[in-house]
Amino acid sequence: MTGKVYLVGSGPGDPELLTVKARRLLDEADVVLHDKLPGPEIIESVPEERRIDVGKRAHGDRTPQSEINERLVELARDGKTVVRLKGGDAFVFGRGGEEMLYLADHEVPFEVVPGVTSAVAAPGVAGIPATHREHASSVSFVTGHEDPAKEESAVNWEALAATEGTIVVLMGVTRLPDYTAALREAGMDPETPVALVERATRSGQTVATGTLDTIVERRDEVGIEPPAVTVIGGVAGIREEVVRWLDE
Amino acid sequence: MTGKVYLVGSGPGDPELLTVKARRLLDEADVVLHDKLPGPEIIESVPEERRIDVGKRAHGDRTPQSEINERLVELARDGKTVVRLKGGDAFVFGRGGEEMLYLADHEVPFEVVPGVTSAVAAPGVAGIPATHREHASSVSFVTGHEDPAKEESAVNWEALAATEGTIVVLMGVTRLPDYTAALREAGMDPETPVALVERATRSGQTVATGTLDTIVERRDEVGIEPPAVTVIGGVAGIREEVVRWLDE
Ligand SMILES: C[S@@+](CC[C@H](N)C(=O)[O-])C[C@H]1O[C@@H](n2cnc3c(N)ncnc32)[C@H](O)[C@@H]1O
Ligand SMILES: C[S@@+](CC[C@H](N)C(=O)[O-])C[C@H]1O[C@@H](n2cnc3c(N)ncnc32)[C@H](O)[C@@H]1O
Repeated sequence: MTGKVYLVGSGPGDPELLTVKARRLLDEADVVLHDKLPGPEIIESVPEERRIDVGKRAHGDRTPQSEINERLVELARDGKTVVRLKGGDAFVFGRGGEEMLYLADHEVPFEVVPGVTSAVAAPGVAGIPATHREHASSVSFVTGHEDPAKEESAVNWEALAATEGTIVVLMGVTRLPDYTAALREAGMDPETPVALVERATRSGQTVATGTLDTIVERRDEVGIEPPAVTVIGGVAGIREEVVRWLDE
Repeated sequence: MTGKVYLVGSGPGDPELLTVKARRLLDEADVVLHDKLPGPEIIESVPEERRIDVGKRAHGDRTPQSEINERLVELARDGKTVVRLKGGDAFVFGRGGEEMLYLADHEVPFEVVPGVTSAVAAPGVAGIPATHREHASSVSFVTGHEDPAKEESAVNWEALAATEGTIVVLMGVTRLPDYTAALREAGMDPETPVALVERATRSGQTVATGTLDTIVERRDEVGIEPPAVTVIGGVAGIREEVVRWLDE
């Protein structure tokens, strides 16, 4: 009998932001495959003998996605109930889609268990609503991983600027200078509020705020490092109106 | 002593998709203010004497936001621990931002408790990843409430089309003909896959799929009604590759 794979989002890091279902599955699964992103508190809440770290291989390099996919199939074919644990939600820049397709191709039953994505939660706990009637009728999540100057860059910063909605950049600490420049070139007001939220809901949560013009300097002053999200748009300015009530 | 207000996201409707924290706060709070969106299962999990329905007033009309704001402040000033329960995440088209600002203005301590937004979860449980390396480097959530033909329409459909990322429309069942037309006019391929996901994770979950050209007809054939999200983009086509494994 083939087992089953649960593609589970772990939320932004606080164990209390696991869903009730994720918590139950972590407690019941035969084996939990994870990388580092769910964070130590959640990972260590699973007994060591039931978890496999697929974030790194023996020599310190990253496990290729193909190897993780095969591992999931093997374990399920062994009859195991498997949790594939992902930071945030598995389908928001989490490669959950690729794993789901591989499982379906290999006739392995699976189930998707949505999680709290850091793209909403990190701004949220920092007092920044993703949308707000007066500031944003849309919110876009985008990867900051790519070089905006690259010909084949898949991210259209000009179009994102033109939406006039909130932009939340994931994996965007290093290339902050590049895409803030791209947005300014696209005509976005240099005074647009921007916030960086690092390690949201975890120990060491840190926030830096500025504008499209000043945020790179602010990043360096405050010493923001990954994992962090960048929030760009009028909503980022709301934080200063509420910050003294936030438990930071 | 002033109490405290928790702005809590309830997730898409399945009580197991509440976060552990939301579940705890619902069990501990003196009073829970909610409307209909969290869904009957979650609402009825709170004893009747501890909950207040602020979705409707005695005569059936909607409670004005200002009245809800005042109620939150009054209860907190009475020393109560208050949960303001919102469908999905409070900050994704949930007016949580307005409530947070009002509380801060009135010196009422509050805390934001992020939830699983339906904008990610509804596509996800239907086998549709919000992002995927081959299909989308961004995902945008947008309100479908507005008439795209309106001069002052806050939503720039042309810019959204130009992002080439996934578009998830909330509150967009009625105006589906209007914004699919706007996207076609903006040059989006009429063959672009589109899916409607109604009542995701609740009893009566229903999915309709088609293309930018056919989805209005499909909506009417299947009889999709609110609450539902519309997913537009290549990722919506992934569903058919995995659908036989989904528990629907
Ligand atoms: C590979 S992506 C995965 C995102 C994840 N699937 C989600 O939904 O949150 C990793 C990025 O998520 C963001 N991230 C994850 N956890 C975070 C946290 N606790 N605080 C801030 N950003 C976080 C950072 O931008 C990080 O570079
Ligand atoms: C006022 S908005 C609130 C969204 C909420 N804050 C969230 O994050 O999910 C209401 C819209 O959310 C979407 N929605 C909420 N729950 C849903 C569900 N279970 N299935 C599909 N769509 C849902 C629908 O588009 C609905 O019109």
